Amino acid sequence: MKVLKIKELNQKSFQEYGDIIDINQQVPFKINDGKCLRYNDLATLSFKNDQAGISLFESKRVALPYKFNFMEKHPLGSQAFIPVFGSTFIVIVASDNYGKPGKPEVFITRSGQGINYHRNIWHGILTPLEERGLFVVLDWIGSEENLDTHHYNEWYCIEAT
Amino acid sequence: MKVLKIKELNQKSFQEYGDIIDINQQVPFKINDGKCLRYNDLATLSFKNDQAGISLFESKRVALPYKFNFMEKHPLGSQAFIPVFGSTFIVIVASDNYGKPGKPEVFITRSGQGINYHRNIWHGILTPLEERGLFVVLDWIGSEENLDTHHYNEWYCIEAT
Repeated sequence: MKVLKIKELNQKSFQEYGDIIDINQQVPFKINDGKCLRYNDLATLSFKNDQAGISLFESKRVALPYKFNFMEKHPLGSQAFIPVFGSTFIVIVASDNYGKPGKPEVFITRSGQGINYHRNIWHGILTPLEERGLFVVLDWIGSEENLDTHHYNEWYCIEAT
Repeated sequence: MKVLKIKELNQKSFQEYGDIIDINQQVPFKINDGKCLRYNDLATLSFKNDQAGISLFESKRVALPYKFNFMEKHPLGSQAFIPVFGSTFIVIVASDNYGKPGKPEVFITRSGQGINYHRNIWHGILTPLEERGLFVVLDWIGSEENLDTHHYNEWYCIEAT
């Protein structure tokens, strides 16, 4: 079992994998007669044939220490996760190494942050740290196969800091 | 000043205007080895040239009774609002009547519900009833004009029930 350190989630540390969806990523502009701030166009979206849809994922809560050996990726589209009730969640990603994920990198979101995995980026399953683990998801919709999976030979463990 | 009644938000009452984004709209299927439920493809999306993006809107809270005389619509795309911290919000919509909105209909979401306005549907501005009024928004992104507005001759009032 290999222990992984939790890294700080910021634009630089995450840029290889995707986008952070929060109000710190961009200067907003005012709409609605000044009553509302718009933080515009925060994610790089990419979908085969522009087939995308809004879904909800409701996932069981996990706790630290968290052990995993499984990764997945979606060749046909990016995939964004934003909490509906502010839940923090573990973000596990890895570079591709000849069709398999390399060593995973681990981040934890702050309450209310979302993330968008770029197309074909290896990532772990949805792992909310709080109830309710309800997330709005924007990803590819269609009948073609859109899931690659990988089991590492060894298990990784993310420990509480 | 005309007083408007708050109607029950359900698929039937809202179908003329858009989609309700919650876990009651569809039977989910299991993903992630049974640890997660996916409520799939909950909104009818429509964007000119498929130009859509994820944004965050942070809006000031409003309270009931709430008065308004302003409506808007977006001819180039649908627009979805889902809370990031579960906030309930007022949903004001109207049918089109020769280029102007007819009498408004009013709904209030339950905590965690989102809605998607179909393309070119008249609606009010974002009006969260709770802090924080942070919403993830999926709408058309581009430089063309995508906003039609209308001021009613009279004011409408939504009263607490």
